[in-house]
Amino acid sequence: MTNLREKALKMHRDHQGKLMVESKVKVTNSEDLSLAYSPGVAEPCLEINKGKENAYLYTMKSHMVAVVSNGTAVLGLGNIGAQAALPVMEGKAVLFKNFANVDAFPICLDTADPDKLIETVEMLAPNFGGINLEDIAAPDCFYVEEELKKRLDIPVFHDDQHGTAIVTVAGLVNALKLVNKQTDQIKVVINGAGAAGIAIVKLLNKFGVNQIVICDSQGAIYQGREFGMNPIKEMIAKETNQQMETGDLRSVMKGADVFIGVSLANLVDQEMVRSMNDDPIIFAMANPNPEIMPEDALAAGARIVGTGRSDYPNQVNNVLAFPGIFKGALSVMANEINDEMKVAAVHAIAGIIAEADLTENYIIPDPFDQRVAVAVSQAVAKAAIETGVAKQIK
Amino acid sequence: MTNLREKALKMHRDHQGKLMVESKVKVTNSEDLSLAYSPGVAEPCLEINKGKENAYLYTMKSHMVAVVSNGTAVLGLGNIGAQAALPVMEGKAVLFKNFANVDAFPICLDTADPDKLIETVEMLAPNFGGINLEDIAAPDCFYVEEELKKRLDIPVFHDDQHGTAIVTVAGLVNALKLVNKQTDQIKVVINGAGAAGIAIVKLLNKFGVNQIVICDSQGAIYQGREFGMNPIKEMIAKETNQQMETGDLRSVMKGADVFIGVSLANLVDQEMVRSMNDDPIIFAMANPNPEIMPEDALAAGARIVGTGRSDYPNQVNNVLAFPGIFKGALSVMANEINDEMKVAAVHAIAGIIAEADLTENYIIPDPFDQRVAVAVSQAVAKAAIETGVAKQIK
Repeated sequence: MTNLREKALKMHRDHQGKLMVESKVKVTNSEDLSLAYSPGVAEPCLEINKGKENAYLYTMKSHMVAVVSNGTAVLGLGNIGAQAALPVMEGKAVLFKNFANVDAFPICLDTADPDKLIETVEMLAPNFGGINLEDIAAPDCFYVEEELKKRLDIPVFHDDQHGTAIVTVAGLVNALKLVNKQTDQIKVVINGAGAAGIAIVKLLNKFGVNQIVICDSQGAIYQGREFGMNPIKEMIAKETNQQMETGDLRSVMKGADVFIGVSLANLVDQEMVRSMNDDPIIFAMANPNPEIMPEDALAAGARIVGTGRSDYPNQVNNVLAFPGIFKGALSVMANEINDEMKVAAVHAIAGIIAEADLTENYIIPDPFDQRVAVAVSQAVAKAAIETGVAKQIK
Repeated sequence: MTNLREKALKMHRDHQGKLMVESKVKVTNSEDLSLAYSPGVAEPCLEINKGKENAYLYTMKSHMVAVVSNGTAVLGLGNIGAQAALPVMEGKAVLFKNFANVDAFPICLDTADPDKLIETVEMLAPNFGGINLEDIAAPDCFYVEEELKKRLDIPVFHDDQHGTAIVTVAGLVNALKLVNKQTDQIKVVINGAGAAGIAIVKLLNKFGVNQIVICDSQGAIYQGREFGMNPIKEMIAKETNQQMETGDLRSVMKGADVFIGVSLANLVDQEMVRSMNDDPIIFAMANPNPEIMPEDALAAGARIVGTGRSDYPNQVNNVLAFPGIFKGALSVMANEINDEMKVAAVHAIAGIIAEADLTENYIIPDPFDQRVAVAVSQAVAKAAIETGVAKQIK
């Protein structure tokens, strides 16, 4: 770990961060200057003044994503603020570039006020073709995303919610093929009612999963629970747990087909795995230490285990989703990233692995499988066109 | 002109704007990922959490400038708004890169409210080592810059003010050598009381010029003038025109040694030039058509003429100033760009041309003279250190 620490600090220091801005045009003489700047630059300005959407033709807007954070929930570090969050947002931009050749730029905003965050992103929208929200604390993150989606005509996508949900559900789709179960027959228990947990519920609904119990640190969430609720939990209580199960995680895991952990290390023990239905499927994604270590889960009878870690099989890594999703959305100048586009991304990721190649240790593609971003971007672009959210420029 | 229009539109369209974001690190395997992103990226985050200034060591902040505009006064196009201003701000970033290898990113903000602009730039400051304000209408531009300078510990520099002033005064310094006049003996008439005009007055004061009359469309500005004033003009009236000259431009130009136009085409005729003192010096910088054409001014007895145009000698081009100024300020992590740094930039630009090489047609270096940005950045960095505005990181 010391070694990782030193290597990471050295790498960041040697490069003074990880990003630079590059000019696509050279300016070495008066003619270059007159085209890239005054007076020629007035011409694209005038075209955009005629119709704002012409910005997609003449500016970086067509290929530029903002990676927006206020640093209130950074990795496992918590609320470290905008300045200290910058290395993460630079890193995210690096992944956009390396995995899908999408240009992305960090926008770390020094405010914990969600309304100021919303207003600021709205003012920044002219520069970007899409907004990737990142590491914003729940429950503000839900409000910020919903409000920005209403106000902007470019995609707004909170990756901690939807990126995680999309890759998790892609893994589940493939896992269910191996255990030969249908989505409408399984019981799924989710531990963690933050950004990722809530988004996973919503996306599972789109796949026909209708038995879901979501837990927070105080146990199962159900309609009318009188402690530890907030508006998001009230909303999600209506959409889940029709059986009105109460009790702690240990209690609701009995008989479950699938456990999805987006919570904390070591919250699941072998007895809890043994209490599940046949062929248990476990996604234990707490970082860096999962809710249960894969070897322990497998020893207790788990059939398939995924984690967030690169040193175990079936890594649920958002990098499988967000680069291709934005690539696809930008390619058709999409107004939004809607549910159909997210579902298309799930199928694209799951579909990278042919059914004949599926094994317990290979339900999710490798993060470096270069086919993934291509497949995701094509599927997302197609879904955008089919659902009428692609812009047409005359 | 049609040819320029077509070429400019084609260039912008072919490249989809002029900028891209480049990753300085490659991510092709798990170790790369663990250093550039999770979990290694937590290490620089923690260092910055210990001390915000560590962001200069580990992030792009050390070399990244925001080119901020709200599009209220774009080139000669006026208030075309944030979206239509984007090609200009991309162009500015292109010049930063091409002329001084400074990374710069456009921040076009969709608001005409100066207080919102200020608040937004303040929230954005963690990402940047400097703020270049651009194409913000007067008089808001003065308030926005002053307020941001108070609030931020990174340089804030409104180029339409200070870039133009610095290059103009550099030209004047060399012109005075040719005509053998001293700054404290000359009378300067400035036409145009917007961003550039006001900044030129302030900078001339630093060079010991004490006879200045500044005019707006209603003639000479003087203390107590009862029409067409605003707080900035009230302020500048106190610092200029001690003789309390009244009347129109034609009237005050009589006997002047220097005319500086930052106004509109064709406001100066040959009779006005003939009314000036011996060896008239004319900077006629209205764009694209100057206050008087150089050939007309010279025929009327002007000794030295500069314009904003690349097709005449002595082009006053801001690109001689802002790339090197920010390069120098960033190189020492300056807190601000103070008057001493601006004065240093003037001397650096003027000093590029050896006295023996000065001629009436060569008082300002060529915009593509690669020595300029180097000399300016070194002079600015030195002045920052000497005036104690360079940051020290322990």
